[in-house]
Amino acid sequence: MSIGTSTTGTTTPGTDTTSANTDTTGTSRGLDVERVRADTPGCERVAHLNNAGAALPPRPVIEAVAAHFELESTIGGYEAAERNAEAVEGFYGAVAGLIGAHPDEIAYVENATRAWDMAFYAVPFAAGDRILTTTSEYSSNAIAYQQVAVSKGVKVEVIPDGPDGTLSLDALAAELAKGDVRLVSLNHVPTHNGLVNPAVEVGRLCREHGVLYLLDACQSVGQIAVDVREIGADMLSVTGRKFLRGPRGTGFLYVRREIVEALEPPFLDLQAATWKPAEGYEIRGDARRFETWERYFAGQIGLGVAAAYASGIGIAAIEERVRTLAATLRAELAERPGTTVLDRGERPSGIVTFTVDGHEPAAIMRAAREAGININTTSPGSQGYDPDVVPVAVRASVHYYNSEDEVQRLLDVLP
Amino acid sequence: MSIGTSTTGTTTPGTDTTSANTDTTGTSRGLDVERVRADTPGCERVAHLNNAGAALPPRPVIEAVAAHFELESTIGGYEAAERNAEAVEGFYGAVAGLIGAHPDEIAYVENATRAWDMAFYAVPFAAGDRILTTTSEYSSNAIAYQQVAVSKGVKVEVIPDGPDGTLSLDALAAELAKGDVRLVSLNHVPTHNGLVNPAVEVGRLCREHGVLYLLDACQSVGQIAVDVREIGADMLSVTGRKFLRGPRGTGFLYVRREIVEALEPPFLDLQAATWKPAEGYEIRGDARRFETWERYFAGQIGLGVAAAYASGIGIAAIEERVRTLAATLRAELAERPGTTVLDRGERPSGIVTFTVDGHEPAAIMRAAREAGININTTSPGSQGYDPDVVPVAVRASVHYYNSEDEVQRLLDVLP
Repeated sequence: MSIGTSTTGTTTPGTDTTSANTDTTGTSRGLDVERVRADTPGCERVAHLNNAGAALPPRPVIEAVAAHFELESTIGGYEAAERNAEAVEGFYGAVAGLIGAHPDEIAYVENATRAWDMAFYAVPFAAGDRILTTTSEYSSNAIAYQQVAVSKGVKVEVIPDGPDGTLSLDALAAELAKGDVRLVSLNHVPTHNGLVNPAVEVGRLCREHGVLYLLDACQSVGQIAVDVREIGADMLSVTGRKFLRGPRGTGFLYVRREIVEALEPPFLDLQAATWKPAEGYEIRGDARRFETWERYFAGQIGLGVAAAYASGIGIAAIEERVRTLAATLRAELAERPGTTVLDRGERPSGIVTFTVDGHEPAAIMRAAREAGININTTSPGSQGYDPDVVPVAVRASVHYYNSEDEVQRLLDVLP
Repeated sequence: MSIGTSTTGTTTPGTDTTSANTDTTGTSRGLDVERVRADTPGCERVAHLNNAGAALPPRPVIEAVAAHFELESTIGGYEAAERNAEAVEGFYGAVAGLIGAHPDEIAYVENATRAWDMAFYAVPFAAGDRILTTTSEYSSNAIAYQQVAVSKGVKVEVIPDGPDGTLSLDALAAELAKGDVRLVSLNHVPTHNGLVNPAVEVGRLCREHGVLYLLDACQSVGQIAVDVREIGADMLSVTGRKFLRGPRGTGFLYVRREIVEALEPPFLDLQAATWKPAEGYEIRGDARRFETWERYFAGQIGLGVAAAYASGIGIAAIEERVRTLAATLRAELAERPGTTVLDRGERPSGIVTFTVDGHEPAAIMRAAREAGININTTSPGSQGYDPDVVPVAVRASVHYYNSEDEVQRLLDVLP
């Protein structure tokens, strides 16, 4: 692994030149860390290295959520939604813009699990259909596969890893060639390891074989550039609270225009369909067929602001900084006797996982917490089909607003 | 219809003697309207008669939601949930206490539609099964019935109304006696009419025939005393934002202890089940099998506070005042030439629906809004199987914190 350079306040140059990336002299640079930290109230309170859990939101997100909630409380919930209709609707364009989608391909949902469920359970499986997934799949998704395996006679098959520890594309291509694959479904970035699965290459193979492709992008959108056209995903599920820096209890689902009408949502309500007493119902033609009418409107507005904020900073600059900070941390950890870095793959994400001989991860987490540093631990129950399952590991997940000093503070408190 | 008496600040005596019902002299009375209005910041801004849409929350709910959201923003989302774990857990007891349930019979969900969906789609329907429902059923539920009718060959049958305009118990009993009924599913209080269905009597018939009973209590909990043991419902779906005065984007599902293990939720995640790579998964044994792990925690806490607040005031006193205010409004409307009150049944709810000859309901709503009064209109798309469907009507829905003066102000602006 390469050792990252650590220069407070600056990073390697990014490609984005929006205002948040332009310093006072007008020079374009990667990202103005001081400015984004000043824009994040939580930075004054904690060194937050638990961004794969839930990130600290920036001030515009906090203000948008609080303002709408306040409005609901003083003029009424429906009346507030009507008054802020533009911001509610603006969510779709902001989120679509971040991932290269059309606004009509976006559904607002309550979290990534709901997004993923609405997509997965809409797939019309038949007995004998095969689902292909990865060793690093999230257990929540594995439970859903198993449920459908039992109820519909579908076969779930786990593609082995390649030499770098991420999904083997050769193995995937070989399984696709055998036929009967109804769905390729995997995570982009897992919750328990820094690996990044080759989403674009998987998409190319799925298109070659005309197979549906569901990508769980819960841990990738917001920290890594994700373009749905480049990836070629048919469905993509995302949460608000993680690297996107949105409110808890928010998320969205992307469904490609060309396939939306072929997918009947597992649940339908008056948002998803129109009731016609004589004939039954008519499902709407865009991705909002996967929505429920009632929702956390303040959260939807906040998530739209979060997506626009990420776009404003520039996802390329964000990705560059996240990868650099994580590489710095991994390089330092790798040099410590007794410390084992677990992250696999050539270009890992901002999620750094490791163990320290003779020290319980939970104890390490508590010690860090007492020093004002938020980290987390992984759980064996979250690691899907991973053959190299580690009972528990320490997980430190960095974001672009973290400082090199915060990373150093973590290193200082580790055993 | 009886004409309600209108005495500002006092109502007929209730039975509850909690602090909120005790005036400064310590005398127990129905409900201290001045006090609950002072505790509702929105009362200073609007005359809110759109409680069947979303009610104005009381100060403790507003403060609990805002405080948790603030904490998330400053110390991190997971860390805030951990610190406020007691309040998060307290939700279950508060909600259970309000409806006479056990805490392990409650699932937190995002809204009543989700609650209802998770229950309805968990019912193991087989071809030929019958679903019995009412004319006043919500169209969103009707769409779901139709979806299952098509996908599983289930028959949906609408029980006719009795002479008072609510569900005919004789007709229901006759249909139950014919057999093959898998589910009786109806609303307690519909969205488009003031009628109250005979939930307790329906429950007695369902128990006699050993048939599952799903009650949509979206519009009743918070305005009418609802006791799940008295009603005998197997499943009951509720929203936070309406008469419960909780935040938008919150709700809960009640599932009776004795049947929870017989119902496999349509979606499963790591909250609902434990992943066991070798054997598959194990679904938890309580109602939280219907939950999703990620959620709007601030909202869950706020909904718990709202439920405790309603219990503190006393649901009997609340119901008494709501029915009295609504009766006052209906009596005044009934005397106006050209105005038609549409509410059916002997003891209607706080939802008052009517038309005024020669005036569009939407125009009436706008005129009221300009006078600082929030009301709403009904929609033909929400009226399920109602044979007497009215294209659109005006809907004014009162709550216990509304004043007699606000009701009079509405009467003054109506044509």
